[in-house]
Amino acid sequence: MKERIGIGLMGLGVVAGQVVEVLKGKADVLARQVGCPVELVKVKVVEADLKRPRAKALGDLVTVDEDEFFETPGMDIVVEAIGGEKPALDYLKRAISSGRHVVTSNKEVVAKHTAELLALAKKNDVGLRCEAAVGGGIPLLSPFQYDLVANDIGGIYAIINGTTNYILTSMDIEGVEFEEALKQAQALGYAEADPENDIEGIDAAYKLSILASLAFKVEVKPQDIYREGISRLDSHDFRYARELGYAIKLLAIARQDNGSIEVRVHPAFVDESSFLAKVDGVYNAVLAEGDLVDKVMFSGQGAGPLPTSSAVVADVTAAARDIYLGVGNRGIWVLNPDKKVKPMEEVETRYYFRMNIADKSGVLAKVSTVFGQNDISISSAIQQETDDSTGTAEIVIMTHLAKEKAVRRALEGLKSLDVVNEVNNLIRVEIE
Amino acid sequence: MKERIGIGLMGLGVVAGQVVEVLKGKADVLARQVGCPVELVKVKVVEADLKRPRAKALGDLVTVDEDEFFETPGMDIVVEAIGGEKPALDYLKRAISSGRHVVTSNKEVVAKHTAELLALAKKNDVGLRCEAAVGGGIPLLSPFQYDLVANDIGGIYAIINGTTNYILTSMDIEGVEFEEALKQAQALGYAEADPENDIEGIDAAYKLSILASLAFKVEVKPQDIYREGISRLDSHDFRYARELGYAIKLLAIARQDNGSIEVRVHPAFVDESSFLAKVDGVYNAVLAEGDLVDKVMFSGQGAGPLPTSSAVVADVTAAARDIYLGVGNRGIWVLNPDKKVKPMEEVETRYYFRMNIADKSGVLAKVSTVFGQNDISISSAIQQETDDSTGTAEIVIMTHLAKEKAVRRALEGLKSLDVVNEVNNLIRVEIE
Repeated sequence: MKERIGIGLMGLGVVAGQVVEVLKGKADVLARQVGCPVELVKVKVVEADLKRPRAKALGDLVTVDEDEFFETPGMDIVVEAIGGEKPALDYLKRAISSGRHVVTSNKEVVAKHTAELLALAKKNDVGLRCEAAVGGGIPLLSPFQYDLVANDIGGIYAIINGTTNYILTSMDIEGVEFEEALKQAQALGYAEADPENDIEGIDAAYKLSILASLAFKVEVKPQDIYREGISRLDSHDFRYARELGYAIKLLAIARQDNGSIEVRVHPAFVDESSFLAKVDGVYNAVLAEGDLVDKVMFSGQGAGPLPTSSAVVADVTAAARDIYLGVGNRGIWVLNPDKKVKPMEEVETRYYFRMNIADKSGVLAKVSTVFGQNDISISSAIQQETDDSTGTAEIVIMTHLAKEKAVRRALEGLKSLDVVNEVNNLIRVEIE
Repeated sequence: MKERIGIGLMGLGVVAGQVVEVLKGKADVLARQVGCPVELVKVKVVEADLKRPRAKALGDLVTVDEDEFFETPGMDIVVEAIGGEKPALDYLKRAISSGRHVVTSNKEVVAKHTAELLALAKKNDVGLRCEAAVGGGIPLLSPFQYDLVANDIGGIYAIINGTTNYILTSMDIEGVEFEEALKQAQALGYAEADPENDIEGIDAAYKLSILASLAFKVEVKPQDIYREGISRLDSHDFRYARELGYAIKLLAIARQDNGSIEVRVHPAFVDESSFLAKVDGVYNAVLAEGDLVDKVMFSGQGAGPLPTSSAVVADVTAAARDIYLGVGNRGIWVLNPDKKVKPMEEVETRYYFRMNIADKSGVLAKVSTVFGQNDISISSAIQQETDDSTGTAEIVIMTHLAKEKAVRRALEGLKSLDVVNEVNNLIRVEIE
């Protein structure tokens, strides 16, 4: 039996700083849970960190030297809280190769290197855990590894980026335009100065890659995920959505269909009476559909140092418990190479089209003909907001289920009509 | 390494039948997850079961003989799906004492004998798992055992009885009275012919006992839980609740306050904008508050053979995986004898009073005096529905935070006033 489990921590940003607090402040609880004390034995920082009060408070535990860090004796678990692809990937590989269980909050490196990291962990008989990478403190990965294991997961519908959900909630409730909502979010610290990662759905795609990989046992590379951001949405879309009974959310969707997996991140119409429609502000939520459980939903704060530290320390505790019990790699996150990611063109859903047309008779017939030619059936149409000064009007078309391929062809067809001035937006309709 | 994990199943009702289906139908997936095949080796039934098609389909696997069942070689895990306190308790004890890991969906036996069963499992170095006992297929117990382990849990607010939630939703949406809503629920199979266990909160109290025990590491006996059912609610209460901005839910609440635990099941006013207010029909949801994660919520279908089998098989898989890895009792569900259950009199919350009074001047002053004498501060009062024929009126008083003790004294005081004809209802106000 081990008498102590040693933790090596890489990085000393706000999340790492909070992890240090929890490991110290709750040492008794964690020791009881694990069976022996869990102690920080070394912290790897960069030069710039050395000036921080929290580095100074750690005294001799801190090093800037990579070799010194990895050669620390009694280090059983390495916690990587640096973020980004490099050098985190090299550090994780070195940690695993030297027989340490690893815990990471780094969605990017896990999403980009899932199969490689899992194979290395298996080879070295250690665990790889990354609950904190998706949804902060909400238990989102462990349900797919344990609780829902008897289920065939049909679909996952997730709001997993708090920044965009905050912006969309503002646009919906306050009626402001995207740029204004983004500025507010930046002023409040919910969006970064360079917001691209969030608003273009890149962050959500990393998280979806991990979720889909766990739920469907398939490697989903971030570049396999179809991705659209939220910057094209405007107040007209929100007004029509309300009128039609929907909210607009940036959804990360993974669905399984005959062994092929569809994965996409884009704004979507969500029925206003559904749970996901009610997930507002910086909250995150994941709805999973399983053949046995039907629908289950998990929600909470998806980011922030405190919730993220909750997930990191839970993973540390689970790894420590495994080490204490003599368990290495649990082998429960395995990838099935037979499953394939479905091309976006084959995806089928419903669509909302908003376009600006010439306000004269016969236009709707011409527009309808384009849909008909592409085998897309229209479920409803709204024409309003005629602008007498320009002689134009805005129409909204809602379709029945249609293939993305057909929709793209229809979009080209609509753009080529002389009576269509502009197709302003096209939004998928997902949760009803 | 084990070459096969053998399962003994006790009971052959709808849940057990579904477990058999899943173990067979998903044998490949489960074997991959565990590391070796997981097979049913014996099923204990009662005489009356022998006529059932699903018993006949199992052939020689079925026995009515308890000794034959327990003496089956190669039985590593016993799944108890009988329900009720006896004989389930004896079976579980025999299974554990003979070195089998146990999985049960039986909330009553676990709630009533938590400490005894945990101690026996620890002594015999086997696991005791009961995820299916609370909330069907929603992962509700494992978050407290693993994911939230770094948190001090402040409170749990749960809708964990689908029957009562269905009835309350009908009363709210359709405006029907309790008896009518109950009849509808019975006709649809959501309520039993003898509905007492559900409508009096007994079922919810068993589940809360287990949740609180895990979250707070304290033994909570069902009789320690303050309990009020839903039969006293009427359409007036729903109307006032709406008017004041609330929904009415049967909540199971466990809160921690300075090492003392309060546990109670009763109807409660819940802010209509909160997540719990939106949990309708037979859905279940648990909101947990932790110092690190803040609020997290889990929801889904809380009952039914399919969701329940999902949880049972997840537990079977986890137990099988432990056996495969050579792990016995994980020792993570431990009870702290220092924590105490708080007497209900000491609980502090807000209250809604509805009463029938004489419709004459000075009555509100007399009523207010009673509240004042008991140090209860009134936050708002509504007087309406004067009945000219009887000269009576209905008033509703909402209080600020007050101790249950004071409220009970005030209730006596109000009843003794000659101007108060009846105190029709008193409902706690919990989620705002």
